[in-house]
Amino acid sequence: MSGFSHVASNGKANMVDVTEKSVTTREAVAESYVVMNAEAIALIQAGNHHKGDIFGTARIAGIQGAKKTPELIPLCHPLMLTKVAVELELQPEQQRVRIETRCKLDGKTGVEMEALTAASVAALTLFDMCKAVDPSMRIEGTRVLTKTGGKTGAWSHPL
Amino acid sequence: MSGFSHVASNGKANMVDVTEKSVTTREAVAESYVVMNAEAIALIQAGNHHKGDIFGTARIAGIQGAKKTPELIPLCHPLMLTKVAVELELQPEQQRVRIETRCKLDGKTGVEMEALTAASVAALTLFDMCKAVDPSMRIEGTRVLTKTGGKTGAWSHPL
Amino acid sequence: MSGFSHVASNGKANMVDVTEKSVTTREAVAESYVVMNAEAIALIQAGNHHKGDIFGTARIAGIQGAKKTPELIPLCHPLMLTKVAVELELQPEQQRVRIETRCKLDGKTGVEMEALTAASVAALTLFDMCKAVDPSMRIEGTRVLTKTGGKTGAWSHPL
Amino acid sequence: MSGFSHVASNGKANMVDVTEKSVTTREAVAESYVVMNAEAIALIQAGNHHKGDIFGTARIAGIQGAKKTPELIPLCHPLMLTKVAVELELQPEQQRVRIETRCKLDGKTGVEMEALTAASVAALTLFDMCKAVDPSMRIEGTRVLTKTGGKTGAWSHPL
Amino acid sequence: MSGFSHVASNGKANMVDVTEKSVTTREAVAESYVVMNAEAIALIQAGNHHKGDIFGTARIAGIQGAKKTPELIPLCHPLMLTKVAVELELQPEQQRVRIETRCKLDGKTGVEMEALTAASVAALTLFDMCKAVDPSMRIEGTRVLTKTGGKTGAWSHPL
Amino acid sequence: MSGFSHVASNGKANMVDVTEKSVTTREAVAESYVVMNAEAIALIQAGNHHKGDIFGTARIAGIQGAKKTPELIPLCHPLMLTKVAVELELQPEQQRVRIETRCKLDGKTGVEMEALTAASVAALTLFDMCKAVDPSMRIEGTRVLTKTGGKTGAWSHPL
Repeated sequence: MSGFSHVASNGKANMVDVTEKSVTTREAVAESYVVMNAEAIALIQAGNHHKGDIFGTARIAGIQGAKKTPELIPLCHPLMLTKVAVELELQPEQQRVRIETRCKLDGKTGVEMEALTAASVAALTLFDMCKAVDPSMRIEGTRVLTKTGGKTGAWSHPL
Repeated sequence: MSGFSHVASNGKANMVDVTEKSVTTREAVAESYVVMNAEAIALIQAGNHHKGDIFGTARIAGIQGAKKTPELIPLCHPLMLTKVAVELELQPEQQRVRIETRCKLDGKTGVEMEALTAASVAALTLFDMCKAVDPSMRIEGTRVLTKTGGKTGAWSHPL
Repeated sequence: MSGFSHVASNGKANMVDVTEKSVTTREAVAESYVVMNAEAIALIQAGNHHKGDIFGTARIAGIQGAKKTPELIPLCHPLMLTKVAVELELQPEQQRVRIETRCKLDGKTGVEMEALTAASVAALTLFDMCKAVDPSMRIEGTRVLTKTGGKTGAWSHPL
Repeated sequence: MSGFSHVASNGKANMVDVTEKSVTTREAVAESYVVMNAEAIALIQAGNHHKGDIFGTARIAGIQGAKKTPELIPLCHPLMLTKVAVELELQPEQQRVRIETRCKLDGKTGVEMEALTAASVAALTLFDMCKAVDPSMRIEGTRVLTKTGGKTGAWSHPL
Repeated sequence: MSGFSHVASNGKANMVDVTEKSVTTREAVAESYVVMNAEAIALIQAGNHHKGDIFGTARIAGIQGAKKTPELIPLCHPLMLTKVAVELELQPEQQRVRIETRCKLDGKTGVEMEALTAASVAALTLFDMCKAVDPSMRIEGTRVLTKTGGKTGAWSHPL
Repeated sequence: MSGFSHVASNGKANMVDVTEKSVTTREAVAESYVVMNAEAIALIQAGNHHKGDIFGTARIAGIQGAKKTPELIPLCHPLMLTKVAVELELQPEQQRVRIETRCKLDGKTGVEMEALTAASVAALTLFDMCKAVDPSMRIEGTRVLTKTGGKTGAWSHPL
């Protein structure tokens, strides 16, 4: 007995059987940060003043990434997201961009992996667009903030 | 003039034209960390003792993720990776798993986004398998360590 | 308030939240035309006389394309099509091929984008197979003809 | 002998063998139009004044669509695009949006299908975002404008 | 009238309309064999003694393959698998590896194609990893063993 | 030292590094058989007499499947196929359909996995279209027949 739901007692990776689970409305919120130097921060500020394509591109990539979760994470179930939201906020005093994602569905499994994948792909896309100016960026603090729905009900990150 | 190679002077997101770039051998190494509680660390230690499916699954997902980079990151070019390696190391004293990835190709563009994507997808897969035991995990410190090849030559992260 | 359902009041592209929508049977019919020269028309006529692989290949590509809609259109929801039909008809007197597609599902969102995507991919596939004979082809008149189901009920194109 | 390069003499659909073709720089430009009513035109004008997410989203979708061409069009070869550009221009007096795409590569096959696919996916994405205001839109005039490279050299649409 | 559910009376390939079908729990079990020489068998035995990555990699590939069924098989409906299991067993006396797969869902269509695809992709992955030692391997006996659910109810392969 | 090129000496699954390999023209031919009952054979004979959509659909699926090989087989490198051919032949006296596939490229790795994947996906597609008439079908004898190119040169299956 492994304690991990995705690992059977014989140690083999395992897709959890959710056939018998009930369909409930489930929601998860996740966040991630891209930490970058002052030059990159200044260029994002200047860019968003005009057209917003930097954050807009990362937002679209994050939404598309959420839909690709079952292709990327081997033991995730395919599911039908009813809502994906990706927001980016420049926090210049901390020299970082904060990404917050929200996924929803009516279904049998939670959507925290979808929210985390959306945040990670948005962060990677931001990294790709800024790496010529600051190749030393770091993606930090990717985590689940809250989730609701399912048997376990509401959960918030303790920190 | 935006300073970002992926953003044109009019502010629009832009796939860089690499048609005229020369083909050279390029390599990039990236890392990421999944920080978790003692219970999850102990279960990974126990699991790997037997079958290794936890790290093995994350490694396969990371390799597959590297190949999906141009699907995930809108302005990345399609390219033909000649090598993807993903290694995971349990660092129990720091209560974390370290992921190191390495990508190579003979081509016209660098492979740091592929290495970062491999690291991120491996980290997400590890998160997915351990989240029943510790839903508060965080993915930290995703960054490029070194890259070689191309016009800019060898680069190492300053930290 | 933008007026576009996919664009939030702050101007940001947005996946509509359909969590609360009810599941109904929805259907959409779309069409598209590929206009080509007499030589291409004649070759299709000759080819279909025998084996039908030209139209058959476009039909399969259109069906597969419908299933890829949420991968292609960023703000489309993933959904489970219960039926996709693609028909091609040679209209030699107008020097064109007419494509008609029909998609159905029991779900929370309409399927007109799926029908339009099926028509577009079938048209592109036909273009690909005929372009050696007529590189000047045009794809024209891609539109929704009818849709049923959902809150708005039955709709027909006014033209 | 069918006359179509993708159709063998026995009538069967066929991926052309390009093994022996030489690698040259190839480029193709394509266009497409989305025709819509005055209300939709006015809303796009208002939206782009602020954030540009409508055109930005269509542009990203078109770039991603170009990369998906060999997945969508059965007889297209996989290839490594070195540049994809998608531009959208509002033409309010004609009540339409014009889309122009440009694809480049160093390779053995032309890229006109990639340029056409980028244009079609950008048009479909624009349709998706505007359909709540004008469900009667039409996608018109999708065609190749110019192509260069390969054995046949430079070609321009005669119209 | 063709007798094949996927082929219309006019001979055209056809996605079956399942809109009116009822949602029931459906399950399918499939198997496949990879037959190889004694050297490959011995190396798998040695490898699994340590880390299990050979079978682990094939198992993950099979699970991922099941989820890709509607992308691979043109007339398959998209569906939401609730369980995929892939098991591999070395049968050294018959010089082969046996693969057994099991897929489940609550849905409108059966899952035997998903189980067969999982088995085929796991077999191909095993072939890929062992081909340097035995390029003459054969994949044999891929078939459905049992299926339950839906209008036809329980079925077992007669052999 | 494991003997398997895809498995490192520490037992971990591994993508072979082909960076230093030379680019040569490589080709592989594979085959597979779908064994079915007399009723299914008769219906295919009748169907192909008219429109050929059954074999045409399987052929397109096989070609598309070859292009998906690096997505399906975790340790396969992405590569740029220059030719994929899929042929199906009814062998009524043996109550089976024979599938033969051929893949080519100028590249650094062999294409036998692509040929095998094409054959497997064509066989699965044929199975899908015929399963309503004969659910007991078996896919048999999937193997590589010949390969050429690369360091090892020409190879033929010994049987």
